[in-house]
Amino acid sequence: MGLELVRVPCAAPDDVRGWDEVPSELRDRVRAVLGKTEGNGCVNDFARALAARAWRDVIDPGVVTVMSGGTEGVLSPHATFFAAAPEEGAPTGGLGVGVSMTGVIGPQDIGRLAQVMAVRDGVLAATAQGGFEARHAAMVVAKCPLLTSDQIDEVQRLGESVATTDTYESMAFSRAATALGIGLACGEFDEAAVERALAGDRSVYSAVASTSAGVELVVCEIVAIGPSPTSTSSLHASTAILADACDADTVVAMLRVIRDAGGEAVQVFAKCEPDPSGRIRGQRHTMLTDSDINATRHARAAVGGLLAGLVGRTDLYVSGGAEHQGPPGGGTITIVWRR
Amino acid sequence: MGLELVRVPCAAPDDVRGWDEVPSELRDRVRAVLGKTEGNGCVNDFARALAARAWRDVIDPGVVTVMSGGTEGVLSPHATFFAAAPEEGAPTGGLGVGVSMTGVIGPQDIGRLAQVMAVRDGVLAATAQGGFEARHAAMVVAKCPLLTSDQIDEVQRLGESVATTDTYESMAFSRAATALGIGLACGEFDEAAVERALAGDRSVYSAVASTSAGVELVVCEIVAIGPSPTSTSSLHASTAILADACDADTVVAMLRVIRDAGGEAVQVFAKCEPDPSGRIRGQRHTMLTDSDINATRHARAAVGGLLAGLVGRTDLYVSGGAEHQGPPGGGTITIVWRR
Amino acid sequence: MGLELVRVPCAAPDDVRGWDEVPSELRDRVRAVLGKTEGNGCVNDFARALAARAWRDVIDPGVVTVMSGGTEGVLSPHATFFAAAPEEGAPTGGLGVGVSMTGVIGPQDIGRLAQVMAVRDGVLAATAQGGFEARHAAMVVAKCPLLTSDQIDEVQRLGESVATTDTYESMAFSRAATALGIGLACGEFDEAAVERALAGDRSVYSAVASTSAGVELVVCEIVAIGPSPTSTSSLHASTAILADACDADTVVAMLRVIRDAGGEAVQVFAKCEPDPSGRIRGQRHTMLTDSDINATRHARAAVGGLLAGLVGRTDLYVSGGAEHQGPPGGGTITIVWRR
Amino acid sequence: MGLELVRVPCAAPDDVRGWDEVPSELRDRVRAVLGKTEGNGCVNDFARALAARAWRDVIDPGVVTVMSGGTEGVLSPHATFFAAAPEEGAPTGGLGVGVSMTGVIGPQDIGRLAQVMAVRDGVLAATAQGGFEARHAAMVVAKCPLLTSDQIDEVQRLGESVATTDTYESMAFSRAATALGIGLACGEFDEAAVERALAGDRSVYSAVASTSAGVELVVCEIVAIGPSPTSTSSLHASTAILADACDADTVVAMLRVIRDAGGEAVQVFAKCEPDPSGRIRGQRHTMLTDSDINATRHARAAVGGLLAGLVGRTDLYVSGGAEHQGPPGGGTITIVWRR
Repeated sequence: MGLELVRVPCAAPDDVRGWDEVPSELRDRVRAVLGKTEGNGCVNDFARALAARAWRDVIDPGVVTVMSGGTEGVLSPHATFFAAAPEEGAPTGGLGVGVSMTGVIGPQDIGRLAQVMAVRDGVLAATAQGGFEARHAAMVVAKCPLLTSDQIDEVQRLGESVATTDTYESMAFSRAATALGIGLACGEFDEAAVERALAGDRSVYSAVASTSAGVELVVCEIVAIGPSPTSTSSLHASTAILADACDADTVVAMLRVIRDAGGEAVQVFAKCEPDPSGRIRGQRHTMLTDSDINATRHARAAVGGLLAGLVGRTDLYVSGGAEHQGPPGGGTITIVWRR
Repeated sequence: MGLELVRVPCAAPDDVRGWDEVPSELRDRVRAVLGKTEGNGCVNDFARALAARAWRDVIDPGVVTVMSGGTEGVLSPHATFFAAAPEEGAPTGGLGVGVSMTGVIGPQDIGRLAQVMAVRDGVLAATAQGGFEARHAAMVVAKCPLLTSDQIDEVQRLGESVATTDTYESMAFSRAATALGIGLACGEFDEAAVERALAGDRSVYSAVASTSAGVELVVCEIVAIGPSPTSTSSLHASTAILADACDADTVVAMLRVIRDAGGEAVQVFAKCEPDPSGRIRGQRHTMLTDSDINATRHARAAVGGLLAGLVGRTDLYVSGGAEHQGPPGGGTITIVWRR
Repeated sequence: MGLELVRVPCAAPDDVRGWDEVPSELRDRVRAVLGKTEGNGCVNDFARALAARAWRDVIDPGVVTVMSGGTEGVLSPHATFFAAAPEEGAPTGGLGVGVSMTGVIGPQDIGRLAQVMAVRDGVLAATAQGGFEARHAAMVVAKCPLLTSDQIDEVQRLGESVATTDTYESMAFSRAATALGIGLACGEFDEAAVERALAGDRSVYSAVASTSAGVELVVCEIVAIGPSPTSTSSLHASTAILADACDADTVVAMLRVIRDAGGEAVQVFAKCEPDPSGRIRGQRHTMLTDSDINATRHARAAVGGLLAGLVGRTDLYVSGGAEHQGPPGGGTITIVWRR
Repeated sequence: MGLELVRVPCAAPDDVRGWDEVPSELRDRVRAVLGKTEGNGCVNDFARALAARAWRDVIDPGVVTVMSGGTEGVLSPHATFFAAAPEEGAPTGGLGVGVSMTGVIGPQDIGRLAQVMAVRDGVLAATAQGGFEARHAAMVVAKCPLLTSDQIDEVQRLGESVATTDTYESMAFSRAATALGIGLACGEFDEAAVERALAGDRSVYSAVASTSAGVELVVCEIVAIGPSPTSTSSLHASTAILADACDADTVVAMLRVIRDAGGEAVQVFAKCEPDPSGRIRGQRHTMLTDSDINATRHARAAVGGLLAGLVGRTDLYVSGGAEHQGPPGGGTITIVWRR
């Protein structure tokens, strides 16, 4: 057992012809699909929902489907399949993969401790399935729900409160709670830190979390990869923190290590965000004051441009909104490579 | 005589406090200011006009003022002053700088041969002032007018035609004609090539042109830099073609050459555009099919992200819309460096 | 036989719960569904495709599904079902409804005469099914394909040409050709006029056409309603030309006539567009020079605001892009009312 | 003494040629200019700043300059001058006009009680100058500052707090506090109500306030008009509450009353907003969930479309963001008319 990755291009959100490129022996073993779709990645991004619906028509309903919106700049829409390949040969210490799904996260719980704990439990289930301990996870990707106007209305009519009444902001709250659940599961910080984080402390972060919010789901869907003692996969992963949205040095160093190990980069998964201070490298940026383009779109375009240049291809998984995923203004990056 | 550069940050389009940072002995010698402002860089970008107006209130009216709109992603609004520094010491073969202005480009001439020829003459005047031959130019930046609805209306009422009736598209036409005028002046191609280019041949391009269109002007304003036999400047320039929006290799190689020469990058000037084929490195991009964000904004964000990462700072001059400035989907880049 | 209308709200593009509100005896008799969805109504509007897919999962595949993107301003996402109700009682001279579908419109035919002729034939088929002559049609709604970057690329690789290489513009070309086919079928003008129109003459227009373009289809889908001698429906229609986007007078007059006839407005179908002259009522508008918001979005918001105020409800079918549908800057309007 | 209004079109934000249309005898008597400019009306709207700067170059620095961003849909950029006309003939009970300016509103005070009280004092000064009591005011327009990223950063570095760290949201907070100051001055509610309002109670509102926020100012600028016993003006005003963004009935009724009084509408000043409940007339709207277009832009387009249709012209003052200006989802409207 072990991870196998297959990446296919998408000519449109509902283009699932790439399924034919997945080797037939792997199709039944696909555990998750991570797609980048071409919507705005914000509240009214229906490209994500369309893609999820299209993929669900061809793949098994149990497959975790994480569609992350936004292919700004040079980024190219695509889907990456995570399959649990059949055992072949001796264990390599390569990657394993596991998935899980939480129960429904009620609108009143989004962005709050209940979501954190649900995700933590989900991560433990996913890593167990993957054959590795949570604290060894190389990357945990999760898709989580957001709040719509209707839901906010309904919760308030019932006399309860929501974490925020701003639908766009609810995406950030949900991504944050999900990242905190991942970090908690992976032993990166404790519950006291989670509480500080929920109260606004941005210095608490996971180094392996990659979370996205979408209007199309009511649960959190989780995919975890990590080195497994029993894996026979030839895939390995390098994980790092991006210090900021210009952090070429870290990526260049990762690529050099992979090359020095005789490896070749297969796919890149990165999280990024506009620096909340309004500055980067000491200079003002305008992502947060642009009322025409949402800040996460700016950040994805910039970091996507950087990574595509360094890696030499554009069908990379670059996702915006990195609350508690790397330091403020930075993010996380995982490069899966093949030896 | 020779070029001196001073770069200052701008806290807003009308923030001209940076003028105080320009050494007093250089202030009378400033020939041009190139600013990046934080508007959309498209038709209704009034940040550019506001900045131009604010700078004109503090600097000499004869100074060429090129405000290029769009600091998407990590890019930071700033202004770079080009001064003709006083002669000091022996000639170094460093850079010289010259400027010029064409006459009014009538709305009916925008994007057409008349504009090309006016720019050609302007470039020859600018390079002569700079103390170098046009064919040795390292970079020629020009700002040019666009067509507004009112102008289109007026021209058509007079029974004449315009190159396009789409205001946004007129920016591309004007940038193209200006770039062709630059290349013609610099001996990069001949008039026959210009005619082919005006008829749609994208394979004709200048390697030194950087052109922007703006609603705030009716003439073309031109700045040229190049190595001058009489220059005493310590500044030099490296110029290259960006093959596409992911062309990190070219930039890395340029930076290595500069470093090997004992130099240090001072400022970067780049042009970029979304690949008109809809593909980059063989993969589909979505810049041209995004009806929410103009394609040039995507391209600036991506290339700005790449260059900022490689150079390590964000106050770079990255301008979108590279018609006939480098190959289709690519662009031009000039790095000014100090030995 | 005769038309029955049922309108249901949509909480999201893929919300098809409204189907339960359609009386069971009508469900098998639904011939078309016209939806307003909440995307941008432009090239990358995937809300439309998502809605079409969701409705196709619950309704008969033969039902014509026209999803029109864009509920800007106060407009509310909804769907209107057009059913051919069973005969009950004596003929009323009320409305009948018919539908049809053209063959595939090749990318090289979009916006050209071949599309016009295919639509003309389709309209004749639809009105025949509806039990009325095309020249008596009260409204003909049609959805038509657009050009994507991929298709443009492919056609050009085959050495053929497309009507335009701008994907956004292709929507206008396709809407125009479809409207011309409708007007031709309905006897509003002849083939010579069509040729003038295709060459740019905006004075040729249909008074009953309502056309939309969408990335999700390759054929034209057509719905026609009109007074039928055999109809037993209690529904009637008033049709008028909107002279411009401010034409309250026409709408007020239509509503008065309906009220005077003892009728009540049931649903409003309107087309609108930004005045291509850049002026409305002698004053400049800024819809065509706004590079942040597409002009059709502005027009839908404005006309939607006007109609919603006059009619007193917001779930109206207001569609943008009125090429050859009413005079330049104006549009068409059909109010279906019940006596 | 009494109010005289002059309205002029603007071909661009910095087009001040309209000044020549103001009768020379009124030029020295202009107390305020209210402009609608064509930016996005949000944080990065530099059209407003450009217009303010351009007008300040031709008019007296003491003139209150309120530039309101956003001419979405059919609205047309223009400027309306409020002059205190010389006394001619007997008092008519017509309108008077007064202006005032508060001191600097510190970033830490924006959206808070200190701003409310500063505005209250300013309104009392303006109405006194206008020759009428605040409780009789027909309309009080005020422009107020917003928070920028830099300011938020600076305040937080000093260990103080700001009302919000979201620059876009700060516009709403500032408009709200200004509206509350106006209502307090005009006796529409008391300080206890202000405190409830600042704590989130949207049921507290002024019926005469019209407030806008802009990045270009640090004080609040105030213009008040109202019927003055000593006025000799032929101008009068009708003021009403817009119940929602579709409230055609109120406007139609106002216009009928004016016509019945032998009057003619001269100019319309309206405030509007997207209904914060996400619904209007019982149906869902999508203004608050559109991450591509800010909700205030949607609302201005819709209400502008309605008013332009009813009034028959498009150069109206329709301003978005109606916090505490009319009921939630509604707004205020003042029609100035001449007998």
